[in-house]
Amino acid sequence: MGVTVKMDFKKILVNDRVKPYLLKARYGVEKESKRVNLSGDLAKTDHPKSISPRDDHPYIQRDFSELQMEIITPVTDTLEELLDYLAAIHDVAYRSMGENEMLWPLSMPPGLPEKEENIVIAKLKSVEDVRYRQYLSDSYGRRKQMLCGVHFNFEFGDEFIRALFNAQSKIKDYRHFKTEIYLKATRNYLHYRWLFTYFYGASPSSEKNFFEKDTLNEAVRSIRSSKFGYTNSDDVQVSYSSIQNYLSALSSMVKKGILSKEKEFYSPVRLRGGQHVSDLVDYGIRYIELRNIDLNPFEKYGISYEQAEFLHLFLIYLLWKDEGEDCDEWVKMGDYYNDVVALEHPLEHTKFEKDAENMINEMEHVVEILDLPISDRLFVHLREMLLDPSKTLAGRLYKESEKSSQSEVATSIAKENYKKSWDKPYQLAGFTDMELSTQILMFDAIQQGIQVEILDRQDQFLKLKLKDHVEYVKNGNMTSKDNYVSTLIMENKTVTKKILHQHGFRVPKGEEFQTIEQALRSYDLFSTKSFVVKPKTTNYGLGISIFKEGANEEDYHKAITLAFKEDSSILIEEFITGTEYRFFVLNDQVYAVLLRVPANVKGDGTHTIEELVIEKNRDPLRGSDHRTPLESIQLGELENLMLKGQGYQVDYIPKKDEIIFLRENSNISTGGDSIDVTDQIPDDYKQIAVDAVAALGVKICGIDLIIEDREVPAANKNAYGIIEANFNPSMYMHIYPYQGESRRLTMHIIHYLFPELYKN
Amino acid sequence: MGVTVKMDFKKILVNDRVKPYLLKARYGVEKESKRVNLSGDLAKTDHPKSISPRDDHPYIQRDFSELQMEIITPVTDTLEELLDYLAAIHDVAYRSMGENEMLWPLSMPPGLPEKEENIVIAKLKSVEDVRYRQYLSDSYGRRKQMLCGVHFNFEFGDEFIRALFNAQSKIKDYRHFKTEIYLKATRNYLHYRWLFTYFYGASPSSEKNFFEKDTLNEAVRSIRSSKFGYTNSDDVQVSYSSIQNYLSALSSMVKKGILSKEKEFYSPVRLRGGQHVSDLVDYGIRYIELRNIDLNPFEKYGISYEQAEFLHLFLIYLLWKDEGEDCDEWVKMGDYYNDVVALEHPLEHTKFEKDAENMINEMEHVVEILDLPISDRLFVHLREMLLDPSKTLAGRLYKESEKSSQSEVATSIAKENYKKSWDKPYQLAGFTDMELSTQILMFDAIQQGIQVEILDRQDQFLKLKLKDHVEYVKNGNMTSKDNYVSTLIMENKTVTKKILHQHGFRVPKGEEFQTIEQALRSYDLFSTKSFVVKPKTTNYGLGISIFKEGANEEDYHKAITLAFKEDSSILIEEFITGTEYRFFVLNDQVYAVLLRVPANVKGDGTHTIEELVIEKNRDPLRGSDHRTPLESIQLGELENLMLKGQGYQVDYIPKKDEIIFLRENSNISTGGDSIDVTDQIPDDYKQIAVDAVAALGVKICGIDLIIEDREVPAANKNAYGIIEANFNPSMYMHIYPYQGESRRLTMHIIHYLFPELYKN
Repeated sequence: MGVTVKMDFKKILVNDRVKPYLLKARYGVEKESKRVNLSGDLAKTDHPKSISPRDDHPYIQRDFSELQMEIITPVTDTLEELLDYLAAIHDVAYRSMGENEMLWPLSMPPGLPEKEENIVIAKLKSVEDVRYRQYLSDSYGRRKQMLCGVHFNFEFGDEFIRALFNAQSKIKDYRHFKTEIYLKATRNYLHYRWLFTYFYGASPSSEKNFFEKDTLNEAVRSIRSSKFGYTNSDDVQVSYSSIQNYLSALSSMVKKGILSKEKEFYSPVRLRGGQHVSDLVDYGIRYIELRNIDLNPFEKYGISYEQAEFLHLFLIYLLWKDEGEDCDEWVKMGDYYNDVVALEHPLEHTKFEKDAENMINEMEHVVEILDLPISDRLFVHLREMLLDPSKTLAGRLYKESEKSSQSEVATSIAKENYKKSWDKPYQLAGFTDMELSTQILMFDAIQQGIQVEILDRQDQFLKLKLKDHVEYVKNGNMTSKDNYVSTLIMENKTVTKKILHQHGFRVPKGEEFQTIEQALRSYDLFSTKSFVVKPKTTNYGLGISIFKEGANEEDYHKAITLAFKEDSSILIEEFITGTEYRFFVLNDQVYAVLLRVPANVKGDGTHTIEELVIEKNRDPLRGSDHRTPLESIQLGELENLMLKGQGYQVDYIPKKDEIIFLRENSNISTGGDSIDVTDQIPDDYKQIAVDAVAALGVKICGIDLIIEDREVPAANKNAYGIIEANFNPSMYMHIYPYQGESRRLTMHIIHYLFPELYKN
Repeated sequence: MGVTVKMDFKKILVNDRVKPYLLKARYGVEKESKRVNLSGDLAKTDHPKSISPRDDHPYIQRDFSELQMEIITPVTDTLEELLDYLAAIHDVAYRSMGENEMLWPLSMPPGLPEKEENIVIAKLKSVEDVRYRQYLSDSYGRRKQMLCGVHFNFEFGDEFIRALFNAQSKIKDYRHFKTEIYLKATRNYLHYRWLFTYFYGASPSSEKNFFEKDTLNEAVRSIRSSKFGYTNSDDVQVSYSSIQNYLSALSSMVKKGILSKEKEFYSPVRLRGGQHVSDLVDYGIRYIELRNIDLNPFEKYGISYEQAEFLHLFLIYLLWKDEGEDCDEWVKMGDYYNDVVALEHPLEHTKFEKDAENMINEMEHVVEILDLPISDRLFVHLREMLLDPSKTLAGRLYKESEKSSQSEVATSIAKENYKKSWDKPYQLAGFTDMELSTQILMFDAIQQGIQVEILDRQDQFLKLKLKDHVEYVKNGNMTSKDNYVSTLIMENKTVTKKILHQHGFRVPKGEEFQTIEQALRSYDLFSTKSFVVKPKTTNYGLGISIFKEGANEEDYHKAITLAFKEDSSILIEEFITGTEYRFFVLNDQVYAVLLRVPANVKGDGTHTIEELVIEKNRDPLRGSDHRTPLESIQLGELENLMLKGQGYQVDYIPKKDEIIFLRENSNISTGGDSIDVTDQIPDDYKQIAVDAVAALGVKICGIDLIIEDREVPAANKNAYGIIEANFNPSMYMHIYPYQGESRRLTMHIIHYLFPELYKN
């Protein structure tokens, strides 16, 4: 019989110094699921090759079986972030599996092979890991190992525990105190976990060959959480009365050979001191791992925000709530209650309905007295589920399955999830508010097994980590590889031009002016030439006037005035004619060349311009606000003006293959098309780009060349002109071009930052 | 007799395609002067040690004698820039000489030693250079070598010559054409240079021992430009009819031993193809060097803007103006005219007054027909000088000298110049519109013999070059040594704090908020603590509220609203108490630590606060708008409020040594004092600064530590907190602190960028 130090948590928790920190916590999720083919049958393939095959991949690993994918989030400070990572890693997992596979959304496996030997053990590199799986296979059978679930790692905020610690005086040692906190939460969780099983249990029925012999005749709430799930044998028993008792029970079982290793102990709550059980001895309990969570079939990521919020609140409530005198007995009672609830029919009211109602009321009371910002909707939903079992997860799944079969329902859910992952392959779910290039880079990093930490989300600031190697990246390609002054050079058009000119590259000739008068005096220098008037530093095309064949003095004056509205310095430059190409240079190599074509439509002889625009905008690559690799074509004032200039209106029907331009400028942001021409551009022009970028001392650069005729050698006089060098060149437009081959620049960046990846 | 290709320049020059480029040109000046002591006697010291002693120093060299300093400007595109460089290099020269020397403002030397052996030949490293000077000494005597003057290098703009070339058809080869242009200008210059001698000749009298035997009895306009100046012997004669004739004459004289080398030919105009005479063979004439310019005694830099403008206009006019048929004769006539004018009395009207008047009228006509933006003031002044010889340079010097002596006048002018150079030692003349730190860095670079090119003046963008090694620098310390993402880290306070925290440094705890509501919800987290509310990215102290002892909800709300006015994200942070120190870290070493003290005055028991402020503001280090190392103390609203808070008014008389603070904040920009404490700060704190900067991956950084008590070990809990890291830390405040030792950080930057300097 274990007896523990009793503290008056009801009093400590309402302490004013504790309150601010109540909801501070850290979270992590491990979520297993099985890979299946598009018909919902277990996949026969190996773990995807595109995922870095490291056994210690931080985000995507194999569990028991080769086809069991485990998705692991990093530790996060908020639930929002936790769900974001779950979403993102799922996107990576899905798109890495390729287009013929998807993830099974249920804890219960789909139909299993008749012979359990056909369930393939994970092909890990570590001999020890494989041997352990072989042992599990021998002890429990491979079928049981195919159960999947969610492990929810939970750590109370350090400030919270410290505040609690300071609000009491019974325990003098902080680490001891912390361990006691977790022990109480754990004992009460084990006692009351049936409530979670009622609401969120979600493994009502099994499929073919899950049970070797005896089958459950009736559907239940949760096979997995019941004694029919994945449990140790009955002689595995520990005590949660103290950490010493817990550890000595574990080690004695290992000594006796009841368990092969400490980690074979499958409790619904695992006490964690760190990676290994031995850390508990050194550090005490640092967090707990809740393991009794069935995959939520209706959530793509296996667990909902509501469930996670419930668990956090539940744990605070369980701290607050008194526990039984004899704590070992208290835990055993919990196992009994849970088994009762787990094995109830999914549409049946629970035997403990009254207790459940009381607990919901108490939890609401705790929310009130502790001022917790928990939404009312949670309680509304809990009460709904309590009153109507068909609204619980098990109830819902059971009811849906009645129409067809559980397997068909699961397959159809899996297909929905699959579709969502492939719908916008340029996005990374969870982080779609971030810049597109950063999303793609994060995707690649996750796939390569590089830890991604977001240091500043608004600012697109990432920390990437591979073992001990850390790299910081902002906006996808602002890195440690470039030196500071080179980026400042590129930020300044005048300086860029001067340096390129000094190195012998052709740049537009021009002058900088600080006053309108100065600029007016130089009219004669430009009057008869092709020239551009532009503000020195603004970048969005504002205040720019182009005169292709000279200008009269009045227009010249107007253009100058316009440019000075945007900046205190302006440039008047020679206008170099030809086609503008964007060269993406990385570490002295051209990885992509892009041609940007102004917004246009191509006639088919039957549709109007307006209809052709609508049709072209249907492309999922097109959208707005840089959330997609291409922008929708507008039909606004400028486009109409441009059409009028060519003698058209929007209802004109272009002839077949006739191309109608709707814009003068070729920016992607105004509906332009991006066309990859990397393989079409001759090497001598690529060399010019590489050399010019080197002259600026830059490693990652998007450099714009105007080329009169790319078939003419670059060495010819005036064959090209360099317009601009960009220190944060857009990458997504090369990765998802409108036409031509995709160039995965983000992956090149990753490999440039982490050359050791090549060695794996 | 030389005959040349004749072109109708009168017609070509007015061509519309030529006009825009008429005033495009490149300029360079070499200016010699003698170092003297403060009494005006020749210095006996060596060339200053602080100036890099390279014989090929780009800006400051020795001429014939060790005490003859030659100041050399880079080639510039405008006269403004030319004068700026002259000013700057003079500042460097003056301050490098030390406080006991100055530059003699006259072409004629001050009194010379009786024995000419006592004129010390420049102690150059090159044996050949010393041998050549010995030869000159033997051939011409050392006295003559002590004449100083200005060499004005002039190159017509390439576009100008190209436009002229295209406007004619007589000469088909561009290089040939260019050479002909310069030859015509040269011949006419030699013919008409007496006009320049009249206006700007400025060596009327000699001092003791200049003439070995025969002395000029009367004052003249220009001894130096006359036959009594520094000229070759009469048998040195060349032809300017063609470049071939010119070169063959020169080489034949060298062959005959009349000249030791081609460069011994001292013409008032030297034809230049590059560094060496042989370049003329390869490239033709690329520019000309006008050598008949006496030091202008009334200009600190030896030549005025007006003179330079006159010379440019004069050369265009001379292109326009017809020349004589026989060009050798034409040049010879010029020598004759010039000698006549040079030897006229300074107050005498010139014999060629009528011709001079005609030429001025013609020049004005040329300005009109060519639309040249030359100021009317030039012509007003030329006519004044023509009508009244006492207004010419020689006339002015002569008249001034009548009151005392030429030597005393020169000494007093030299002292004025000396004073100007030392008055504001933190400034670099010519570039005082630039940032103070950049000015000081440029000073150091020039002193070290590093070529300084300004790529963008407004943007403080420099190109530094030492032999083949180029470094770009912006704002004094933004360089290639720092990597890009590290500076982005520092730009983002949240990211900086996160990284420092992850590396185990103490930073203020805090949270970032994106909405007022979010921030309000967290009131409990801060209400009873010391904390700061501030916008995330603004830097000028705007929107910051400090609560040293908690805040009520209303003030908290106000502070949040205020911060959100400045940025879309705000930070609420723990306020760390103690003293704030700025550590300047460069390449893993602390080079300076500064304590900033809020604006204050120290009582003397007799003066009022207001009087003490006025007195303190007299310090030349104080000024406004960051043009000085310290800012003037204000007595505005905030200062008065602060006084009131302490129970004072501006007419209060503080007791002796009583310190009255006028500001809460310690910014230098609001009148704070800067106190160097580099030697007082214990090493363990310096190590913290170095390690923190290294954690951010930075090489040049100003990092702010709050230290509670610097006598307590840094390893103690909460001994320090890191507030901020700055990627462009101010340097001037360490170089010119209010109290304590100066730390020449700019020089450390230079040596960091150019480690090869140590090897010299």
